[in-house]
Amino acid sequence: MDQRAIGMFDSGVGGMTVFKELMSSLPNEDIIYIGDTASFPYGGKSKETIIELSKKQIQNLINKNVKMIVIACGTATSQALKEMKHLFSIPIIGIIEPTAIYLKKENIKNIGIIATAGTIRSRGWEEEIRRKIENSHIQSRACPLLAPMAEEGWIDNEIAKLVIHEYVKDLKDIDALVLGCTHYPLFQRLIKQELSEKVKIINTGKMVSNEVKEYLKKNHLENEKAHQPNYKIYLTDTECNFIQVASRLVQDKTIIKNIEKI
Amino acid sequence: MDQRAIGMFDSGVGGMTVFKELMSSLPNEDIIYIGDTASFPYGGKSKETIIELSKKQIQNLINKNVKMIVIACGTATSQALKEMKHLFSIPIIGIIEPTAIYLKKENIKNIGIIATAGTIRSRGWEEEIRRKIENSHIQSRACPLLAPMAEEGWIDNEIAKLVIHEYVKDLKDIDALVLGCTHYPLFQRLIKQELSEKVKIINTGKMVSNEVKEYLKKNHLENEKAHQPNYKIYLTDTECNFIQVASRLVQDKTIIKNIEKI
Repeated sequence: MDQRAIGMFDSGVGGMTVFKELMSSLPNEDIIYIGDTASFPYGGKSKETIIELSKKQIQNLINKNVKMIVIACGTATSQALKEMKHLFSIPIIGIIEPTAIYLKKENIKNIGIIATAGTIRSRGWEEEIRRKIENSHIQSRACPLLAPMAEEGWIDNEIAKLVIHEYVKDLKDIDALVLGCTHYPLFQRLIKQELSEKVKIINTGKMVSNEVKEYLKKNHLENEKAHQPNYKIYLTDTECNFIQVASRLVQDKTIIKNIEKI
Repeated sequence: MDQRAIGMFDSGVGGMTVFKELMSSLPNEDIIYIGDTASFPYGGKSKETIIELSKKQIQNLINKNVKMIVIACGTATSQALKEMKHLFSIPIIGIIEPTAIYLKKENIKNIGIIATAGTIRSRGWEEEIRRKIENSHIQSRACPLLAPMAEEGWIDNEIAKLVIHEYVKDLKDIDALVLGCTHYPLFQRLIKQELSEKVKIINTGKMVSNEVKEYLKKNHLENEKAHQPNYKIYLTDTECNFIQVASRLVQDKTIIKNIEKI
């Protein structure tokens, strides 16, 4: 009933894994992605700076006439989502809440979280999960090597195995492991090998796309017009290896076309 | 004869290894360091953006009344040094030229360069060395995992060994290997193990401090007043793990005090 695109932004290329999940679960929706590559990464920046950057990208997306916005960036979600919801009337979904809702629904209380150092330091995941789930027991681990390893394409070699072992070996008695960085679904297979069978591995991109789908349905905002969907990617700085890394992340080169500087 | 401080800036914490070299070879000089942590890393940014950022930090240093400036950042050196020299009359030394001068003086022609992906992509090292040394044969290798590994403190474990092996194994018949990123001196020992005895490993921080020393001497700009030198660190964004990482890089916590937001 609403043919406008879904808007999304990330500090860089990582959110492309969320893009891929949205594409596959909502094949009729147009999507506009902004990668704020000029300011990448948000990780080391202050709350104040991240709020300013998020405001700018949300305004950019609103100017492109989107119907809702996904903040496909852990840092921006944990530092700026609340403020953005206050500032803008357009529906905004972050990357953290959908996973927390799922964990609550499944009654999972022993939870591991792996993410970049910046995201772990911000405690965004931890606080959101604690807010939603009483008596939850959370173990967090910063994994600064995983994102560059994904960008290098080392997702299945001896080094990747050792690094992942090093990162998850101290997570004890968890029932679910949240992949708190959008790069990490690439390592899902290796991570699974390191953990006991019963541990659920949570791909946050999938959680987000489920949430978006549900939201559009409930509010009658789906695009019901049969058409080949339009995908458009804007970057704030084009001199970066976005295409190369995005191809690795989504493992499908055909998605990554139609890139423009904003 | 000139008691003003030496100014230096980097996009983040990496330049602290250069800071350390300056301290040890010029024990009488005051040093002011700016870490442009709000814009870290410069790696993925366009030339235009890096020129703007460099201009701002050089102006900040000039306002602090420094006598000369070291750009302790590979990306800023390769993208903006020439423009900064045009724009400002204060002496400015980058991180690349001192090494190229040394290689020329030693008549080394088969040269390996390892650096971050952004630095390698910018071709700054390669072009400067080619300009200085005729018939040089250069092999470059981007090593995106080394900087985060240094920040993680994994400088001597099995993973570090494997990663370094992977990065240097294809560099054949080189006589010198340039550590083109300020984080890499931490891996000097492991890198040495991977290479033949005769390969010189070039710590660019050392090259820079030699060049600064020579420049000050030649121009009678040394601080000859006997005193306990003042070291001051400014960050453009203080909410980052600068102190933790800097301690690892310089392996001396006492250096990292007196930090302020600029």
